[in-house]
Amino acid sequence: MNKESVDILIIGGGPSGGVCAVTAKMNNPDKRIMVIREHEKQLVPCSIPYIFGKTLGSVENGLGSCAMATQMGIEAVIGEVKDIDIKNKIAYYGENAISFDKLVIATGSVPFVHESLQHSLSLNGVFTIAKSVELITKLKKYADDKQNIIIVGSGFIGVEIAMEFAGIGKNVIMVGGSKYILNRAFDSDIAQEAQKIVEEAGVTYIGSDRVVAIMDKNDDNTVNAVKLESGKILDTDLVILATGYQPNTTLATKVGISLGHYGGIWVDDYMRTQNQDIFAIGDCTARRGFISKAPSKVMLASTSAAEARVAGSSIYGIKYLKGMSGTISIFSTKIGDTVFASAGVTSTKAEAKTKTTMVIGSFQGINRHPRTIPGAHKQYVKLIVSRYSGQILGGQVIGSDEAGEIINLIGQIIESGRSVYSVMSMQVATQPLLTGAPTNYPLIMAAIMAIKEIES
Amino acid sequence: MNKESVDILIIGGGPSGGVCAVTAKMNNPDKRIMVIREHEKQLVPCSIPYIFGKTLGSVENGLGSCAMATQMGIEAVIGEVKDIDIKNKIAYYGENAISFDKLVIATGSVPFVHESLQHSLSLNGVFTIAKSVELITKLKKYADDKQNIIIVGSGFIGVEIAMEFAGIGKNVIMVGGSKYILNRAFDSDIAQEAQKIVEEAGVTYIGSDRVVAIMDKNDDNTVNAVKLESGKILDTDLVILATGYQPNTTLATKVGISLGHYGGIWVDDYMRTQNQDIFAIGDCTARRGFISKAPSKVMLASTSAAEARVAGSSIYGIKYLKGMSGTISIFSTKIGDTVFASAGVTSTKAEAKTKTTMVIGSFQGINRHPRTIPGAHKQYVKLIVSRYSGQILGGQVIGSDEAGEIINLIGQIIESGRSVYSVMSMQVATQPLLTGAPTNYPLIMAAIMAIKEIES
Repeated sequence: MNKESVDILIIGGGPSGGVCAVTAKMNNPDKRIMVIREHEKQLVPCSIPYIFGKTLGSVENGLGSCAMATQMGIEAVIGEVKDIDIKNKIAYYGENAISFDKLVIATGSVPFVHESLQHSLSLNGVFTIAKSVELITKLKKYADDKQNIIIVGSGFIGVEIAMEFAGIGKNVIMVGGSKYILNRAFDSDIAQEAQKIVEEAGVTYIGSDRVVAIMDKNDDNTVNAVKLESGKILDTDLVILATGYQPNTTLATKVGISLGHYGGIWVDDYMRTQNQDIFAIGDCTARRGFISKAPSKVMLASTSAAEARVAGSSIYGIKYLKGMSGTISIFSTKIGDTVFASAGVTSTKAEAKTKTTMVIGSFQGINRHPRTIPGAHKQYVKLIVSRYSGQILGGQVIGSDEAGEIINLIGQIIESGRSVYSVMSMQVATQPLLTGAPTNYPLIMAAIMAIKEIES
Repeated sequence: MNKESVDILIIGGGPSGGVCAVTAKMNNPDKRIMVIREHEKQLVPCSIPYIFGKTLGSVENGLGSCAMATQMGIEAVIGEVKDIDIKNKIAYYGENAISFDKLVIATGSVPFVHESLQHSLSLNGVFTIAKSVELITKLKKYADDKQNIIIVGSGFIGVEIAMEFAGIGKNVIMVGGSKYILNRAFDSDIAQEAQKIVEEAGVTYIGSDRVVAIMDKNDDNTVNAVKLESGKILDTDLVILATGYQPNTTLATKVGISLGHYGGIWVDDYMRTQNQDIFAIGDCTARRGFISKAPSKVMLASTSAAEARVAGSSIYGIKYLKGMSGTISIFSTKIGDTVFASAGVTSTKAEAKTKTTMVIGSFQGINRHPRTIPGAHKQYVKLIVSRYSGQILGGQVIGSDEAGEIINLIGQIIESGRSVYSVMSMQVATQPLLTGAPTNYPLIMAAIMAIKEIES
């Protein structure tokens, strides 16, 4: 058995593992840092939907690069850690043992498939969206000469894949478990607008029914239909199960690292597990909401990256004293030419989870000024606001590409606990070709509308 | 003489007057509010450059609308207030007298022309960029059959007009008083990139010389050349003096309202003049920098709008307790396909004015991820940071359209006094088609680079 010794060992080479390695190296240039990951090639996770259609067009175009980490002197090995001797600080993979001083678990997530559908995973033509080059390559190839695709699930991965397949002329049916698509990130008024665009692109959405069986009618180990709860049978050539992800904690569980809610590894605000020398970051952790402080199932690369930076700078002592106070579930996607973005709690969640009494402030404007500027696009901002403190709890935006950064502005407002009274008179750069007008910049107007509501 | 009586009288119908009226009405729905302005039609000020080229193409397309104010029951009259009886609270215009309870002065700014060039304003073919439909219409018409244009000044108005004229095939020479264009808003590394694009569009920039005389060589009261300090003579058909603006305080001075620095009306954080019933907002006020607290000459519609919202909600008592703590000089423009944006202090200003010891953190990334996404554009973020507190004092961005909102995110970070330690682990929404990667989102990376600099 080969034996090596490092200062920091990071298990997992996804976005959180990579960012943690780079951050840890910056903060501890003299430490030996090693990342151990299962595959040679790594996909950029959020690029996966775009591999299937015209946008990226190939698996190659969706690959990430480790150049920065390598340049900084971070070592990378390929292998699967099968066991860890926690007491003696040794990890084992293949014929190798690595002793470490600090350990970071960044094992990510694996697709979640409902128990009733798991047996179908062995059929030809049934796929999940695992973050694996091998699986995505196989799926892309399988889809090549297939015309009819059923996507189970209506989250953003499902929607993005549906739009890419529709864009190359496939017949796509999405079967979701909710009345409208994207129902976890958006209130129904906004989700409806997104759904309209998806339907106009030729995708059929079935929200009132759900898939109860995946069928192999010819008994040739190949899917050719799904059965819905209503009894309806839908013929198909390909089924994609985009029904979410669950923390990948097989290793953590095996070696006795404590879990928290929803099967994620328990961590404190600085991403330490119950063992102070072992950190966990990314989708494999038990998360909570920034506003609600309640358990959250959110899995986003941006939340993972923030956690990775906290861990990477806290590994030999809490250096910057800014921990993770929960995820703000900040997220954006583009459907057709329209961007939908969300941060913090939706009004549905605000009512159900935070138990605050909230008000809504919304404003529909445009993203240029005056409205005669060519290419002007509707820009709608909706804010969820605490009635009693005025604090902004959440925001949703519909707009053109700029909405992808407006949501980051709203995210920063939520993270810094600012109120509508402060946003009302915030200073923004406004430019005819780039933004709404200074007189009715939609975010500020939405804050003003919320104040009006509070005072009414 | 007609006599009327209102609760709140606002003098000036530009962005600040309009926003103040709307805000005051929302906060005081039962009060009678009147705006008095000089012209029937009002230009959206920042749309003016785009009237001259293909973007808007006509003065009509640059007009603003008062529909919202009218709908809310705000009265508007056309006229020029010539005198105010401060003691008895009566304003006079034409044959009319209006008594008021509260007065807001929003008389804006007028073009600044150096003394040595003022006599030339009477020549045909010499124009300033006054915010007047009449003047802009005249200039557009005059330019129609002229080929050679000289623009004096290299601020954003001058640059935007130069690019529009170049875009319709005119020969444009800009003569600025600084080595690079846009030198007040950008450090020279960034200004140089902007200048390169302007020059590639066919505009000639002369930064090392300045205009000392505007010439009428044929003695026919029509400009046909300018003389530079170096002695060089440049022939031309049209001269535009885009050399800045100065507060329009003729009325305020006449009626004895106290001025502050740079000829602007003195105001406190709630935009009250030294008379507690009289407010002043917008370009006619004496401004200071948010970071430096030093006098500032910045004139931006977005600063004006923030002041207007503070005044409009404070007019019958300080309702929201968030005053103006100075302008963050937040600003963006698009030159060719590239956006240049700035907020807070530049590194030049940070050194000269705030007397802080600062560090720079910068990062060049792209606005999409992975970089194989079609249409990816360079995105460069530079942060000016206090070495001792880590507080972000300023930021500059080069990017595609999204930079227009990234600067607003940076502005919010500056306004809320956040540090690089907080930005390092901020949560951002990242999406392949809309933003940089979660692993190297340029704003976060620039904060990390600043931390590295502080710790080095």
